[in-house]
Amino acid sequence: MPFPAKTSGARETERVSRFELTPVGSVESPLTDPDSAPKQGDEGAPEAWLVFERAVLSALDGIAEGDEVIVLTWLDRAHRDVLRVHPRGDTSRTAQGVFSTRSPHRPNPIGLHRVQVVAIEGERVRVRNLEALDGTPILDVKPVLSGEVEER
Amino acid sequence: MPFPAKTSGARETERVSRFELTPVGSVESPLTDPDSAPKQGDEGAPEAWLVFERAVLSALDGIAEGDEVIVLTWLDRAHRDVLRVHPRGDTSRTAQGVFSTRSPHRPNPIGLHRVQVVAIEGERVRVRNLEALDGTPILDVKPVLSGEVEER
Repeated sequence: MPFPAKTSGARETERVSRFELTPVGSVESPLTDPDSAPKQGDEGAPEAWLVFERAVLSALDGIAEGDEVIVLTWLDRAHRDVLRVHPRGDTSRTAQGVFSTRSPHRPNPIGLHRVQVVAIEGERVRVRNLEALDGTPILDVKPVLSGEVEER
Repeated sequence: MPFPAKTSGARETERVSRFELTPVGSVESPLTDPDSAPKQGDEGAPEAWLVFERAVLSALDGIAEGDEVIVLTWLDRAHRDVLRVHPRGDTSRTAQGVFSTRSPHRPNPIGLHRVQVVAIEGERVRVRNLEALDGTPILDVKPVLSGEVEER
């Protein structure tokens, strides 16, 4: 039943209460220490490899060197019970809701990284400006759309 | 063990083979038909409500009317076994890997939507330009970073 009819609110909530993610690859990076890693890709993040599972190799078809893409990761070292944080870990700043920050700590710790592809070698894709730690699982890759990269 | 040490490749893969998502809310939208819904938010998508679970209300603190935010959703009507698609469903175009398209059909069907907040009423947040279907589960909300919205 791929397109189920809309049911009542209560039943709907029950039906969709959990979803399961399967990593499609993982990050190979010189970054191993969460405390010293840059907080954003444009803050001195190094080049890194995205190493994909061979089973999803055909999903990469169409990605080329020079492309800017969005990588979604699973921030497996994050704390999922955190709803408020001090921005950038600076306790002199007022705590705010995690949905208004890029803190890794949040109910569903999905990382969003905009990177540039610099090389493709089979299931290994080298990218610039990735702040994810070594071993971070990869969930998805998407192209950047023009409407998202222009000021509007 | 929130910060486990890096183990060998094989054990690492075994350890992280599945992750579980818990929705933090759902979309209330006039869009109910997958076939007639716009494919992107800037292609005539209507206003919609993001309705959050009361348990995560404090995570919204810091989001204000006028903000541009990124909403991550779970595209629960997608097919997860698809690795190649015809762009925009147009079979006259050559099939390409899903990671180079925004097709909802992909191994981990996470939707990425850039929207503008137009009203906040408690746990209900009204946004402009959301192409997600009515009932779509919400996973996360993040602020747009300046480095991501400028051409570079």
